[in-house]
Amino acid sequence: MNALPLNIDGATGVPLTEQIVSQIETMIRSRRVLAGAKLPSIRQLATEQSISRFPVIEAYDRLASRGLIQARHGSGFYVANHVDEHARDAGNCDPRLAEEESSQILAQFNYPGETLKLSSGFIPEAWRDVDGLTQAVRQASRADIASVIDYAIPHGDTNLRQQIQMRLNTLGINADLPNVMITSGASQALDLVVRYMLKPGDTVFVEDPGYYNLFGLLKLQGVRLVGVPRLANGPDVEMAEALLKQHTPKLFFVNTVFQNPTATNIAPQIAFRLLQLATQHGFTIVEDDIYADFQTVPTQRLASLDQFDRVIYVGGLSKTLSSSLRIGYLAANRELVKNLVDVKVLTSLGGTRFAESVAASLLERGTYRKYLERLRKRVRDSLSSAVQQLESYGWDVFDQPSGGNFVWAKVPGIEDSTKLVSEALKFGVTLAPGNYYRPNGEACAWVRINSAYAGDRRAARFFEHMTQTARA
Amino acid sequence: MNALPLNIDGATGVPLTEQIVSQIETMIRSRRVLAGAKLPSIRQLATEQSISRFPVIEAYDRLASRGLIQARHGSGFYVANHVDEHARDAGNCDPRLAEEESSQILAQFNYPGETLKLSSGFIPEAWRDVDGLTQAVRQASRADIASVIDYAIPHGDTNLRQQIQMRLNTLGINADLPNVMITSGASQALDLVVRYMLKPGDTVFVEDPGYYNLFGLLKLQGVRLVGVPRLANGPDVEMAEALLKQHTPKLFFVNTVFQNPTATNIAPQIAFRLLQLATQHGFTIVEDDIYADFQTVPTQRLASLDQFDRVIYVGGLSKTLSSSLRIGYLAANRELVKNLVDVKVLTSLGGTRFAESVAASLLERGTYRKYLERLRKRVRDSLSSAVQQLESYGWDVFDQPSGGNFVWAKVPGIEDSTKLVSEALKFGVTLAPGNYYRPNGEACAWVRINSAYAGDRRAARFFEHMTQTARA
Repeated sequence: MNALPLNIDGATGVPLTEQIVSQIETMIRSRRVLAGAKLPSIRQLATEQSISRFPVIEAYDRLASRGLIQARHGSGFYVANHVDEHARDAGNCDPRLAEEESSQILAQFNYPGETLKLSSGFIPEAWRDVDGLTQAVRQASRADIASVIDYAIPHGDTNLRQQIQMRLNTLGINADLPNVMITSGASQALDLVVRYMLKPGDTVFVEDPGYYNLFGLLKLQGVRLVGVPRLANGPDVEMAEALLKQHTPKLFFVNTVFQNPTATNIAPQIAFRLLQLATQHGFTIVEDDIYADFQTVPTQRLASLDQFDRVIYVGGLSKTLSSSLRIGYLAANRELVKNLVDVKVLTSLGGTRFAESVAASLLERGTYRKYLERLRKRVRDSLSSAVQQLESYGWDVFDQPSGGNFVWAKVPGIEDSTKLVSEALKFGVTLAPGNYYRPNGEACAWVRINSAYAGDRRAARFFEHMTQTARA
Repeated sequence: MNALPLNIDGATGVPLTEQIVSQIETMIRSRRVLAGAKLPSIRQLATEQSISRFPVIEAYDRLASRGLIQARHGSGFYVANHVDEHARDAGNCDPRLAEEESSQILAQFNYPGETLKLSSGFIPEAWRDVDGLTQAVRQASRADIASVIDYAIPHGDTNLRQQIQMRLNTLGINADLPNVMITSGASQALDLVVRYMLKPGDTVFVEDPGYYNLFGLLKLQGVRLVGVPRLANGPDVEMAEALLKQHTPKLFFVNTVFQNPTATNIAPQIAFRLLQLATQHGFTIVEDDIYADFQTVPTQRLASLDQFDRVIYVGGLSKTLSSSLRIGYLAANRELVKNLVDVKVLTSLGGTRFAESVAASLLERGTYRKYLERLRKRVRDSLSSAVQQLESYGWDVFDQPSGGNFVWAKVPGIEDSTKLVSEALKFGVTLAPGNYYRPNGEACAWVRINSAYAGDRRAARFFEHMTQTARA
């Protein structure tokens, strides 16, 4: 290569190495030198610029470590290929690391005609309290003018936080108001925790199988996922203990009640062991309790034992009240909540004040409680008939589902759930393959079935067909 | 120190270095060894575990580079102090880096009795179209049941995106639907860009003075801010060119129209020079056009020259329609929008569908357009009387404000705006000191005044008092 048009000046006070790095980087990014071009040798550049070789060596080293140039053995330095792509995903987030998860989430928003979405994460529209919601919407727009105009307050609507606080107290979690913040869905709560506590290369423990949106969120930010098998009574603590000999997770994400996708609850002795491990190994547990409101009689929560020492508690109203309003919440120790509110405000300014006001009014007036009584019965009934139906067709159901929307099921003799997915399509049924629910996309025999849709005739025909196919 | 209870096993297949790092890290984080404790020497640990010294050297090195242990010259290795704090802010975000910005944002949400918030960023509640908003809220809840129940679609409401697209077209920006995404306020748009394109240690250019929420967002994520002076016709391009000799910014954030806080517009020749610099130096410009809707006759936009090659365009409805609804948007090239939608979905699942539906209906029905006509007149009138008033009291006003809410003003002879802040309090007026609007909190003589509140008698008394004080 000919001389690079560098302009190195020892008198500016800027270190020579920095001047070289900055000027060459600019040439590369602005495509004035192209991918594959050879750079002058270290000796040549030093001579041209009448400087010593050391700053040039250091500059090339830095450019190489940032992927902008490459050393080829015995031949010198070259501008790297794909510098553009490198430059493009050079931020804290790389969506290519979570491509499967994002396309699966996006696929849920496609409405391909008439297929039955049997793995859906949502309850049917007809089960929602549309009347209660529209009344609350009108009421809020009349009674609370600020709610249609102003920014939400940083911690979230105070009345809503009080309602959440009371709800936590009934679960045995001693939350005061400063322990509670409102988030834009449980998604923002998880995202704030990830941003504040993790950086690329960190390790976390997740349940296997578990929640794929969470896996995507973590992968997007370069976090390493280690799966801990989910058993019928909670995460496999023996396995967790063995994995802790090799890994130092900062966080362990656990879905305590009606776990997604196994529909099981954590047992008290497992919760206790898990908290012991957290203390011994210095990690924090994120207790994802998003299905809490489907439950009539509370079972064990991690936060009710630990009281915010090593537990961050996350919940929300999207699964029951409304997914549109994006009402989630996070409860943790005051110091952490204070810091997460700072991050929330700096990154989003705050939530949708109107949505918070609507949710607060539904909770305060008892409308939500009455709706939950009806909804719980529906969810219970559809779950038990889905389990009965699947078992009658000879499917295996994971343990005895404790409650919630989901059945985690498989067909005896079929070890690869992608076979179920392709067969389902023939019956007008779309299914997500079970490997989506595994932290690193491992093969899986199981699929998640939303019990609310299992009564559809297309589902029934598919269930029957599969066991016949497996037997054949 | 006595022997550490390590359990190093050469037969597991896990490298010895990793085993040592992981086990010592766990002891430190779980507080089984405390800050200040001395670790065994390299030789001692190697002997105890019957392994060579190399993995121990490497392990101590890694622990030290992560701040968990410290070498003290001639004396050995010790557990670092403040490991806990280190562990706590080990994520991608450190709110301590943006403490000033977050406390200033939070302060806007305190309502200390009767003080007049003269630096406020908001228009008065009475100027909003409360009737239009409440009608649209009721209308959406009646006509669009999905809007109160379902998740928003990932790109945002299609009708709303079409409205935004038409708006961009009238500004000369050739956006198609795939170029446009809805965000939760302009804040989420900026946050998505920062997360996707920047990592800690990266450099960006910002305007000086400029938007402090943006400065906070960037600092939170460890980005280095280099301020480019904002002149009456846009950023100082001569200075930008000089700074580009020392810095390699990835992004340059520019507020083209009614800039916050100087109230000035970018001139066509400055826009052109800026885009030339972007091409030559390979950076991207984020065009923050949040005050666009205050403007009647469009002036130069960067995106209308560049058409999404090196410009990302950000806007929103919070300044005019409603801050509660959190409606922002981003327009950029299709590839980037696709990737940012992935990041949006993975980190937030999506926006508030109901808010999007309300905004879409207000824009479609022309209610928003009619409201803007009334609002623009009010904003124009209040701006010109505020300027007149300030000048009549002998204050200096930055150039001739082009429009929008703000006046950037100072008192001749007073070089430190914190003096204005403390004096203002005596008159029941709260002001933000001008250094908040400077990228690194540099001293500043100027303050931002929201013209809508300048007519208040407390403000008038304060304006008069200050010039008398300065003269005395």
